[in-house]
Amino acid sequence: MESSNLVLQGLMLFLLLFLMGQANVYTRAGKKRWSGEGTSPHLESIFLGRCNEYISVVNPELSEKNCSAIWEAFESVLHKDPCSVLPSDYDLFINLSRHSIPRDKSLFWENNYYLVIAYADNARRLMPITDVLYGRVGDVINWCRQENGSDFDYHSCPTVEDCENNAVDSFWKRASSQYAHDSSGVIHVMLNGSEPSGAYPVEGFFAGYEIPNFQKDKVTQFEIWVMHEIGGPYLPVKLLKCLDYPAHADCIFNSAAESTQQRFPSLFGGKWDPSLMFFLFLTLASEIQL
Amino acid sequence: MESSNLVLQGLMLFLLLFLMGQANVYTRAGKKRWSGEGTSPHLESIFLGRCNEYISVVNPELSEKNCSAIWEAFESVLHKDPCSVLPSDYDLFINLSRHSIPRDKSLFWENNYYLVIAYADNARRLMPITDVLYGRVGDVINWCRQENGSDFDYHSCPTVEDCENNAVDSFWKRASSQYAHDSSGVIHVMLNGSEPSGAYPVEGFFAGYEIPNFQKDKVTQFEIWVMHEIGGPYLPVKLLKCLDYPAHADCIFNSAAESTQQRFPSLFGGKWDPSLMFFLFLTLASEIQL
Repeated sequence: MESSNLVLQGLMLFLLLFLMGQANVYTRAGKKRWSGEGTSPHLESIFLGRCNEYISVVNPELSEKNCSAIWEAFESVLHKDPCSVLPSDYDLFINLSRHSIPRDKSLFWENNYYLVIAYADNARRLMPITDVLYGRVGDVINWCRQENGSDFDYHSCPTVEDCENNAVDSFWKRASSQYAHDSSGVIHVMLNGSEPSGAYPVEGFFAGYEIPNFQKDKVTQFEIWVMHEIGGPYLPVKLLKCLDYPAHADCIFNSAAESTQQRFPSLFGGKWDPSLMFFLFLTLASEIQL
Repeated sequence: MESSNLVLQGLMLFLLLFLMGQANVYTRAGKKRWSGEGTSPHLESIFLGRCNEYISVVNPELSEKNCSAIWEAFESVLHKDPCSVLPSDYDLFINLSRHSIPRDKSLFWENNYYLVIAYADNARRLMPITDVLYGRVGDVINWCRQENGSDFDYHSCPTVEDCENNAVDSFWKRASSQYAHDSSGVIHVMLNGSEPSGAYPVEGFFAGYEIPNFQKDKVTQFEIWVMHEIGGPYLPVKLLKCLDYPAHADCIFNSAAESTQQRFPSLFGGKWDPSLMFFLFLTLASEIQL
């Protein structure tokens, strides 16, 4: 009897440990509720630092803005379920952080993040949304509220696969709409010719939230650049620049470069601009790489 | 009598107002004690935001660093007179914020700030001191203590013209020394060939605080680029790149480009590297500009 009792106790202990283990796994799984990364650590400090740097170092003309108030408006999404955040929930945030965008300086893009950041050069060349105050504070960070709680969820956040109305996507929908609405003059668009699914994503932010919000009377022209990824899957650079200077010596490097040039009718004005230089740079780099 | 009394009273009132005006000017002048700009507004928020962004977004391997402790070590200069801050006063700050610098990634420079920032591309190409944590937090901001007080002086700060041992210069001396000490492998140096006083300032940080601190056994070679300012005061580009490929078609754009090339013996390895591309880019841009 005694030995079978021992065996029984052993089995029960094993079962108990097993169940505890299961419970532990369950708890962990429960914490990682969503498929996306959790809220960025130190979110508030990063947000406030970027905001204060923008209004006092990058653009001191905005020194009257109140970053604490902007942060409070931003974090009001904590009042909403992580899958019930609408673009309009950022209305106050946008109204407090919004500022004018210089004419001819807007740069829209799809699938070109690093190139855009490098080319814009901290708003010295052009001013993409990440160089506008409301875009700058949300750049490359993540956030959402806990599903059942009032604090940020640092373990995981919903992406569009989990639910459409998540905090980050709704933020960028609202910000993109505003950015397009406030853009004027020449509208620059940088697309990615090496993107396998196509340079123009019909379901992207540009098509969905920016194009519909351009103000017809404020936009004078669109300048669309389709960029070629160096070392990308295929060669042909869709050259939309160098078009006004097809015979210019600097536009013809060698036979390989020439063969990738397509002659379009002149779309843009006759004056030299820095984007041409940049495009030549990419072409040149492609040639060297090959 | 009465009318002369009135005149006298009028004169005294005028004198009083005049002296008050003088006193007011004196107070204002007293506030603006030094020749440099005052402490950047929101210094603490900017510092903490940059630090937290660095350790959680830019380089999450450093997530164990404590930005509040780093800030406290940094602001301990508030205990010192604004003209008595020594490089060693930042020892604790450096010890807390210091981290390793990847081999072959260091980029030193003089008079080339914007080019260095753009080229380093947030440490993706190279890692200049502004992409190291202790350099990042102090980049493009200013600070000093009030001369007779315990808070930061937001009105003016001493520059090297006012006194040598000011808070900002001592910071960069200490940080530069550490950066050179921790650099290894290939050391990149970007100088400015268009600087009227010469590409190599003998009184600069590079000569004074970086060269003396290189660790002989850790450095394998120096790669020095002398860059040409587009549209600068004189033409000749001191081409220190393109040297391994003098006959390469991409290194000869046209006769003007060729005439600015000086042929040096091969200094560097034979393999292609991105800096060549960049240099070609600059050369090309110069040609187009001319």
